[in-house]
Amino acid sequence: MTLRHTRSSNYPEWYQEVITVSNMAEGSVSPGCMIIKPWGYGIWSRIQRTLDEMFSASGHENYYFPMFIPLSFFQKEADHVEGFAKEMALVTHSKLRKNEEGELIPDGVLEEPLVVRPTSETIIADAFSKWVVSYRDLPILMNQWANVVRWEMRPRLFLRTREFLWQEGHTVHASSVEAEAETEQMLEIYRIMCEESMAVPVITGEKPVHEKFPGAVKTLCIEAMMQDGKALQAGTSHYLGQNFSRPANISFQNKEGEREYAYTTSWGVSTRLVGGLLMSHADDEGMNTPPRVSPYQVIIVPMVKDESKREAIMGYISRIEEGLRSQSAFGEKIRFKTDKRNKDSVDKYWEWARKGAPVICEIGERDVLGEKVMSKIRCRINTTEHKKLLSFNEFISTIGKLLETIQSEMYEKAKVRLKKNIRTDIKTMSSFREYFAEKSGWVDDKERSHPAFVLGKWSGDETTLPLLKELGVSIRCIPFSYQDGEEGECILSGKPAIKNVIFARSY
Amino acid sequence: MTLRHTRSSNYPEWYQEVITVSNMAEGSVSPGCMIIKPWGYGIWSRIQRTLDEMFSASGHENYYFPMFIPLSFFQKEADHVEGFAKEMALVTHSKLRKNEEGELIPDGVLEEPLVVRPTSETIIADAFSKWVVSYRDLPILMNQWANVVRWEMRPRLFLRTREFLWQEGHTVHASSVEAEAETEQMLEIYRIMCEESMAVPVITGEKPVHEKFPGAVKTLCIEAMMQDGKALQAGTSHYLGQNFSRPANISFQNKEGEREYAYTTSWGVSTRLVGGLLMSHADDEGMNTPPRVSPYQVIIVPMVKDESKREAIMGYISRIEEGLRSQSAFGEKIRFKTDKRNKDSVDKYWEWARKGAPVICEIGERDVLGEKVMSKIRCRINTTEHKKLLSFNEFISTIGKLLETIQSEMYEKAKVRLKKNIRTDIKTMSSFREYFAEKSGWVDDKERSHPAFVLGKWSGDETTLPLLKELGVSIRCIPFSYQDGEEGECILSGKPAIKNVIFARSY
Repeated sequence: MTLRHTRSSNYPEWYQEVITVSNMAEGSVSPGCMIIKPWGYGIWSRIQRTLDEMFSASGHENYYFPMFIPLSFFQKEADHVEGFAKEMALVTHSKLRKNEEGELIPDGVLEEPLVVRPTSETIIADAFSKWVVSYRDLPILMNQWANVVRWEMRPRLFLRTREFLWQEGHTVHASSVEAEAETEQMLEIYRIMCEESMAVPVITGEKPVHEKFPGAVKTLCIEAMMQDGKALQAGTSHYLGQNFSRPANISFQNKEGEREYAYTTSWGVSTRLVGGLLMSHADDEGMNTPPRVSPYQVIIVPMVKDESKREAIMGYISRIEEGLRSQSAFGEKIRFKTDKRNKDSVDKYWEWARKGAPVICEIGERDVLGEKVMSKIRCRINTTEHKKLLSFNEFISTIGKLLETIQSEMYEKAKVRLKKNIRTDIKTMSSFREYFAEKSGWVDDKERSHPAFVLGKWSGDETTLPLLKELGVSIRCIPFSYQDGEEGECILSGKPAIKNVIFARSY
Repeated sequence: MTLRHTRSSNYPEWYQEVITVSNMAEGSVSPGCMIIKPWGYGIWSRIQRTLDEMFSASGHENYYFPMFIPLSFFQKEADHVEGFAKEMALVTHSKLRKNEEGELIPDGVLEEPLVVRPTSETIIADAFSKWVVSYRDLPILMNQWANVVRWEMRPRLFLRTREFLWQEGHTVHASSVEAEAETEQMLEIYRIMCEESMAVPVITGEKPVHEKFPGAVKTLCIEAMMQDGKALQAGTSHYLGQNFSRPANISFQNKEGEREYAYTTSWGVSTRLVGGLLMSHADDEGMNTPPRVSPYQVIIVPMVKDESKREAIMGYISRIEEGLRSQSAFGEKIRFKTDKRNKDSVDKYWEWARKGAPVICEIGERDVLGEKVMSKIRCRINTTEHKKLLSFNEFISTIGKLLETIQSEMYEKAKVRLKKNIRTDIKTMSSFREYFAEKSGWVDDKERSHPAFVLGKWSGDETTLPLLKELGVSIRCIPFSYQDGEEGECILSGKPAIKNVIFARSY
């Protein structure tokens, strides 16, 4: 059953429809904010747990800082406040009173307005300045899981909402070398999580100067390709140098007994990853959720046509559950659920199919009699067949492997798409302009071609940026790979250039 | 090493000092808010995970709702808005601009002010009204983990901060019977978590009418006794009846085809539990963290005096770690950590002792030679000895049991204190007044006596409340247990009364 909107007919509407039918999230009466529903929240929880374990294994500890930042603190770093001033929610009052008409209106004006955190560098830097005295106190490696607010004017579910959930890491080091190594390490952790857990291949690189985080010395990023060829910035890791430690006075006595400003980093990923997951794997029938981040990996739907057979069917399902409990995938217990709701079983099948539950087993009378398990593989890619009728023993003994195969095939499919859609043969502005003249759209469309990524030379000259802006294109990153070290001509200006960059439209 | 402040010398300062020395949290530049640090956050994470598993096992799913609630939504239930109007943070602007003096000031006035959620009944009820159509859609069993804001004027770390972390459950049911059963079930889950995981005994009961949640039909609660005899409301579960479903129009078609308003509940616990944990178990040397909620259960501190022996000591510690990895406590792997920081080992020992890590092993040269493990038991209660020098094998094979014993002894100790400090012999206002004439203070103090809980009759007449207020006492709950069904005289008014209630000062 194809959705009303498909990737080729209307990509943005398709995105919205997949979210609706998979019941991952919905809009809210709170303008520009979203309600994250169990399937969407469950995916985020899997991402969260995976990252949390990697952060902990690399020595980071969880803190929680206040979400209200006094305005004066936010102003300490000029570029930083500049970067966020246009999208800040401000708390100005602390209670309500009734006016003469009996309406409740804000009262209790605060002495100083409070910014609802769009990011926490400033308030955390202030705490670091009190905690750090000597080199022996370093490094400080912290992370927090929190909600943040950026006043988006064109909100889209998961990709751009006014409030979203994220983690933000903040670290302090005694040397720039160590801080830069941390910046790289965290980017690598993000890459591993995206590629291994989410099955989303990414390009790692550095942002050009004009795209870096407000206040950073340099910003590293991972960029993923969505099915419409647009780039999604999936995570960033910032080397902040002494830009925040100077105004906040994070200084320490070094081994030589001298006072020195510390070096800081920050890094984050957010619930926008869930939107990126969707646009990497969903198809015209709904979501496909990679097993590693899927809230449930196996769904069992009882098919009871004859009520007198219910007991036998449910008994057989108990045996399947027991079998599943004994198996593992990716070194963890298998997450399964039997859908016992009092609803039509075909409707139930489609609910789970739309959510992209990796494997859905429909168990009816015939399966009980034949000791079989009918499993439908929703996340079917390449070689994996859609439907399998296996014996009980075969199903139980191969389910772990099947989930692992589904995961790796999903990754391979996305990787092939990424590779196929990086153009490397565009050398001149006219061919560049011609390539991006097409509208963005489903890159696997057989009827029309759509632009995606261009890998090519750039001079670094920012006067070329208006040309890009005109085409709705930006420089996503200077990728770590794909560098040949050769001098060539900047696509945009014809000037000499050494670095290759990724040009693309983006979310 | 006794702290500067003790429970008997200055209980409030002692509380603050324990938080400081255990490094669980600290104040912040954001007025009235706190920074939760790794030991405090780690305890909260354990509580969170325990509850989350119990919520899930009882069929609840996690959602995430926007934290900004349009003011008009908040006003739908009159008692509700009344209850929170005096402590609401209001967002009124969405950006900054520079004024003539070049100062940044709030700009972009919102059409409608947004309330930063103090609780989410109203915005969630609105979503429920859209989701619920037929009885087949019920029940809806949801929970969310979130931050909330209540503009406290006298903030105290963990107990009362303007922003705090919590979970709030919200459910919708087709009948009042089912909704009331849910309200009771969730209270029972809170009781189990407090008593079994936090080792904090609680009294379960119902709030008197004047103490119920604004908008609720009835509020159930768990009340714990702190070491100064004051009560801490540790969790509440509200039966909301149709009070929120009527104004929000949460209605459904019942089995008979008729339209009916649904019945809702809500329930929550917050980071104030961490404050309650401290005041249940900490002593004059610092925190004692019950093993089940302790971020680490065993800490290993290498004692290297002679650098040439470092390798041997660290090698031996690796063997201990390996041994610990093979053991479990409470059906889970043991959480341990070796403190390898480049600091004085005595200082390290005291850091962990102040945090109340249940077992701290100091491993030096002598232990390596003798194949021994010197373990100090921080959370020592009753029979458990403070120091043990065990053979390697004995230590490893008994550690799980030891942690379980520590846990149960901590619970027993708190339970004995609770029972001992409930006065049941106070029958008249004069003896009641005399009892509460004493200031609250450490109830185990041998020098002075301090009031704690009084269990006695109350008529239910609210004109008696000013008498209580004068003494700083409140009615904590009508306990489910401790009811004799006998008619007696109300302590406060002398009028006929049947119900026993708990009177106490409180946090």
